[in-house]
Order: sequence, then C-alpha cells, then structure tokens
Amino acid sequence: MPETIAELTRKAKDASSQVAEAPTSLKNEALVAVARLLIENEEDIIQNNKVDLDRLVQKKDYSKAFYDRLQLTPERIADMAGGLREIAALPDPVGEMLSMWKRPNGLQVGLVQVPLGVIGIIYEARPNVTVDAAGLTLKSGNAVVLRGSSEAINSNRCLAKILRRGLRESGLPEDAVTLVEDTGRDAALELMRMNEFVDVLIPRGGASLIKTVVENATVPVLETGEGNCHTYIDAGADIEMAVKIADNAKTQRPGVCNAMETLLVHREIAPAFLPASLEVLTGKGVEVRGCERTRQHYPGIKEAVEEDWGTEYLDMILAVKVVDSFEEAVGHINAYGTGHSEAIITTDYSRALAFLSKVDAAAVYVNASTRFTDGFEFGLGAEMGISTQKLHARGPMGLQALTSKKFVVFGEGQVR
Amino acid sequence: MPETIAELTRKAKDASSQVAEAPTSLKNEALVAVARLLIENEEDIIQNNKVDLDRLVQKKDYSKAFYDRLQLTPERIADMAGGLREIAALPDPVGEMLSMWKRPNGLQVGLVQVPLGVIGIIYEARPNVTVDAAGLTLKSGNAVVLRGSSEAINSNRCLAKILRRGLRESGLPEDAVTLVEDTGRDAALELMRMNEFVDVLIPRGGASLIKTVVENATVPVLETGEGNCHTYIDAGADIEMAVKIADNAKTQRPGVCNAMETLLVHREIAPAFLPASLEVLTGKGVEVRGCERTRQHYPGIKEAVEEDWGTEYLDMILAVKVVDSFEEAVGHINAYGTGHSEAIITTDYSRALAFLSKVDAAAVYVNASTRFTDGFEFGLGAEMGISTQKLHARGPMGLQALTSKKFVVFGEGQVR
Repeated sequence: MPETIAELTRKAKDASSQVAEAPTSLKNEALVAVARLLIENEEDIIQNNKVDLDRLVQKKDYSKAFYDRLQLTPERIADMAGGLREIAALPDPVGEMLSMWKRPNGLQVGLVQVPLGVIGIIYEARPNVTVDAAGLTLKSGNAVVLRGSSEAINSNRCLAKILRRGLRESGLPEDAVTLVEDTGRDAALELMRMNEFVDVLIPRGGASLIKTVVENATVPVLETGEGNCHTYIDAGADIEMAVKIADNAKTQRPGVCNAMETLLVHREIAPAFLPASLEVLTGKGVEVRGCERTRQHYPGIKEAVEEDWGTEYLDMILAVKVVDSFEEAVGHINAYGTGHSEAIITTDYSRALAFLSKVDAAAVYVNASTRFTDGFEFGLGAEMGISTQKLHARGPMGLQALTSKKFVVFGEGQVR
Repeated sequence: MPETIAELTRKAKDASSQVAEAPTSLKNEALVAVARLLIENEEDIIQNNKVDLDRLVQKKDYSKAFYDRLQLTPERIADMAGGLREIAALPDPVGEMLSMWKRPNGLQVGLVQVPLGVIGIIYEARPNVTVDAAGLTLKSGNAVVLRGSSEAINSNRCLAKILRRGLRESGLPEDAVTLVEDTGRDAALELMRMNEFVDVLIPRGGASLIKTVVENATVPVLETGEGNCHTYIDAGADIEMAVKIADNAKTQRPGVCNAMETLLVHREIAPAFLPASLEVLTGKGVEVRGCERTRQHYPGIKEAVEEDWGTEYLDMILAVKVVDSFEEAVGHINAYGTGHSEAIITTDYSRALAFLSKVDAAAVYVNASTRFTDGFEFGLGAEMGISTQKLHARGPMGLQALTSKKFVVFGEGQVR
C-alpha cells in the first residue's frame, strides 16, 4: 500500500524542521556524500535510466530532444555530482540577519533569513532536476517533495534512493528528500493543494505544465516561465556590436528561455543593420520572418504574421520588425513580451536609462546579450529556474529565493 | 452598460506604467490632494455612508461590530486623511538600487526595487480600506483595483470618486485607482483569475474571505492571515513581567490578529504564575478555559477541549495549558499556531535563542507582548495587513512588500 500524498508531505514537513536547524557543515557533508554516492552507483543509475529509455523507445512517438533530456550518461552523472559539490561550496543563506533596528520603546526588531519549509517540485522527464533541486533545497534548509513525470520514474527512484542514503549517512532525516512515486494526475493535484504541509510549489518544465500548476494549485507557486525575449537595435547603435549581440542572443543556444525570439530595429538604422545581421543569421540557418519593411531591406525571407510576435520559438526561427521609434519598441516589448529578458543596443545615454526603467521584465539589458539571464552568469552561484512572476523572486532564483524571512523581537517586558 | 472586469483591469494596467514612473513629488502631491478632498467632502461621504448604514439596519440580522466597521464619522474621515499624509511623508521605495556588482566579464548587474504593477484588493465592509489601500499602492508606484463588499458600495463609490479626482488634479491617471462596482461573486472570481492584467491579489478580511481567494485565484495571492498566537511562560520567568505581558497580549485589544489566544505555562512556574495571572485576566472579564492542571491551580474555570487549542477567539476568551517542558511548548505552538506571532517569557539565555529559532512564525518574541506585530510598531511606517505566508512578504507588510525587483544589466557588447 503506497503512502498517500498527505502522509508523504507530512513526513517531509517533520523532516523540514530538522533540516532548518542543521548546521552548515552537516548540510555540506550530506551534499558531498551524495556526490560521492552518485559516482559510486553510476552503473545502477544508468541501468535504471535504461529501463526508462527503453520504455520510451517502445512508444515510438517520442522526439530526439525528449530522449536526450531523459538520458543519463557517465558525464551527466559526473555533472550532477559536480553541481552538488558546487552547492556545498556556496555560502549558507540560512540565519543571515538581514537587518536589525531598535524601536523607541527599546524593542530590538531583527529580520532574519529562514528556510521556506517544504518545497514541492513538479517537473518533466529530466532526471537531473531530481538531484539539482534536492541539492539546492537542502542547502537552503528546506525539505523537498519531488514529483517527476512517469517517463523518468525508474531513474528518479534510483536517484532519490541515493539522495536519501546520503542524508541518512550524514545524520540528516532522509524524508528531507521525498519522491512521489505515484505519477498520476490525481497525486499531482493533491500535492498542489496540500497547503498544510507544503509551503511552496515550483513547477519546472514547459508552458502547459506551468499553466496546470498555476491554475490548480492553492499552495503558493513560484512560476518559472516562458521567455519571449526581444533585442531592440536603437538608431545610432554600434552596428558591429549589434550584429554580434543579435547573433549570440539567437543562435548560441536557441532552445532556452533567455534566447532572443524577436528582433526590433529602428527604421533609421534598418538599412545598414538588417542586411549585415540577417546575412549572419540566415547564414547560420536561422529562419527569419520579417515585417513588410524588413523584407524590403532583406528580400527573400518569410513574412511575419501577428502570431509571430507572441511566439516563443525555442528554435532557429526569428521574427524581425522595423519600428518607427524607441517608444514603439518599448510598447511592442511590453505588449508581447513575457517579462523575461529584454535588451536595447544603443549609444544614447537617455534611451539606455529609459529602456531599463520602462521595460517591465525580470532582466533588462543595455548592450549585452539576453543569454546572460542565468543564476551562474549573474553570480548567484546556483539556479532553481528563472522566475517571470513578480512576487517573492524575479529572474534567476538562487539559494536566497528558496528562503523566507522572520521577524525576531528582543524585549525586556514591553507591552502596548 | 458597466465595464467588464477585463476592461477595468486593462485600464488599471495601462495606468500602472505611468504611476510606476511618476516622480515621488507627484505621488505625494496626489496623496495630499486626496487628503484635502476627503475633508472638503466630508458631508458627501457621510451621506453616502448613511445609505449603506440604513440598508444594513433594514436587514436586522447584523452585528454591532459589523455596523461599527462600516460606519464613517468625521473623526474617521480625518483619520483616513491623516493616514494619507503620513504615507506621503514616508520614503519612496521605488527605484532603490538594492545592490549592484560587477561580473568577471565586465557586466554590471544591479537589483533595483520596482512596483508590482496592478494590485487587486478584495475586502469586506470596511470603507477605510478603500482609502488606506489606495494610498499605499499609489506611494509604491502601483495601480490598485478595489473590490469591496456590497454592504459598503455607496461609501466606496464616493471615496473612489474622491481618490480619482485627487489623482486627476495632480496629473496622474485616475485609473490608477479603479473600483469594481459589481459586487457579485462572478466579478470577484473573474478578478481572481485576471492574470493578464493583475499582478497580485491581497484579500483583506476574515478567514472565509481569504480561503475563497486562495482557493479560486490563479493570480498570485499575498495572504494575510489568522493569528492563533501563543505566549509561553518558561520555568524561571520573571512572574511580574509574565503577568503584565499575558494581560496585555490578551486584553489590550482582544479582537485583533496579534492578540494572544492560548497561554502555555511550564509546570514548574504554574503554581506561582497561574493564580496571579488568571486573577488579573478573569478580573478583567476574560473567560478562561484551562487544561486539567490549570484547573488544579486555579479552580472554577471552564475545561479546555481539543478544539480550543486551534481556535482564534478574537474575543475575551483564553485557553490555558500547563506543559512539562520547553520542547512541549514549542511543539504545541508549531502544531496549533497559524505562524503569526509567538512569544516566550524567560530569563534563560539559551531557551530564548532556541525559541526564536525553533518556532515557525512571522514574528517571534522574547519578553514582549505579541501585540507589537504591526507595521507602525515595527517601524515600517505603514501597513497593508500582516502576511502569514512565507513567500514574498512575511509579517507586517509595509511599502516594500508592495514592490518587486528587476535585474538591470549594463553591458558594453558582452556575449556568451
């Protein structure tokens, strides 16, 4: 008889208070122990992963990309282990006194960083998320409830066993990493509404997964999201820089959320910029879909339709639009963007500042590629997805995004 | 034909970008203008409020407390105006650069405080919330969509008209304060799911209102919550201080969320503390419900049943329990508390620190009354309710809780 979601999450909640108080050294020891166990059990992991892969292949209607995300190799296992060691080396966010002040009545009020408690992760067939998420939540003093997809269940079961063994061997409660083995829809829905024992949900995956969680959850959600990212080439921009950044933002890794999907070009610079840039992009195999004026400057490309402006291709496809003004560019971005990462390429001081202020997104750039929106690139040391919502965490979520706060008040008998 | 929720919130969204960029002086000017208009239109406000009050009286099955919350008097109008002037005097949270650092590749990454956008407030028959909420959201650079209850609709309509006039006269968009005049359930549900135009919802009111919002909203919710608050009298506590704090926490204002609901007493101090404390409390009219041992030390009181430990009375009623140990007290609080405000009265250094660390609540106290959990008392200068959730804001929410963050990146052509 498998345990119910209520039973599983209650045990995670119990474990969470122990992990919350665990000294940094103990958490780091557990992370390093798991890293070691991953390497030692490489064969077992690959064998279990193979069961998942074989089942996938039998289905026939799977994509190469899906297979690739599901597959674990010795290199990937080494990467997961390395990731855990890196997390162990990061500073512990728990217990930091963010500020403290004294009130006129003598009360000393402090604001201290504390763990969130129990974090539920709902994700797709990427078994490496099992290890990454467990590592980040453990370091930040939380317990984690992992609910991966059915396609990865054998891999996840094997990885969760290793994670729990590492915790146990280090003297931490194994329930701090809890895998929901029931991959059915009902179990997921139950987890999304388990407000009593789960403090936060983080969905990691495609748009439809995130939408399902947002629509069904009563537990607060940290939404990681779509990136319909723009680069706007302002009048007077350095053309060489603009060409280089547009190329990087589109082609360096087109399948990720911080890649550029639409290029906006001021009409004054379009005649000089567009031929140079689109030559490079089409030369690399990018399918360009342009507005009327773009096609005048660079004939022979597909016509962009309304739908293109709102599409996150995650592919070697790019929509291009010529705009009449800075204001039109900002208006377009705020209308069609998903609030992820947006860039202006400019030499104009005022428009640089205005862009940073007027564009409503998690990360706004002047003269750099949107591809930098990433926890490691920003120097946060780690990343649990990129938040496109405005509450709690916005942009790349490091360890701090996995914490809450608490007011601590030192009194000497004060009453109101 | 009244405007739909989609139309209303879209206009608020449009207005929000103007308010987000408004200079501090302009926002303050609008706040002071509204304060002046409230006083100038006192008669009109009271007349409209009277329509609501008369309708309430006709219903017959209303409580005195409900009538009291709904009623606006010249004093209350002056208070609302004074509140706005105080908000005008607070520092502007918008645009503060929280930190900025340089990456090895030369990128300068900064984290800046920005408005949330559009904040939806769903509240009960307290027309003063209309003005308070509008003032706080405006100062923090947001637009607000107000959805009060039907009982206060005439009062709210009159107040919203004044708020919008103040905005207009100061050159700010009047849609930054938008009242939903349709007080039906469907309109509220639509507002809760208007993710396209509403960034955050804040329910303000009783437990059932908050539950409805949490269960139905897809827009992220800032949950303000119930306070089942405890005071634990540790062995060896200063009895005089303990009696004074218990009295204050229970009786100074029993109807509010930071008032004490359960008193926990270590068995060693119970014989000396309980008679002294309960004498004071019952003398003030508090109905005490005690556990077995409490009733031995102070006979003649009602017996506490299981349900009492989980009840937020918001009244002159107190549950009292004698515990065997510090650990039992902490366990009881973490099991029955709502994560609001919890206090220990002690002279022991280690247990003081352990209480602050082990108790999971928005505000944890040593030797002070839980009644201090309040934005003004904590020195935040203002308050938009007290959050009992762990995401984004915890404890009293000041202006900062009404902001989000944004990464701004200054580059010079960097690519990955």
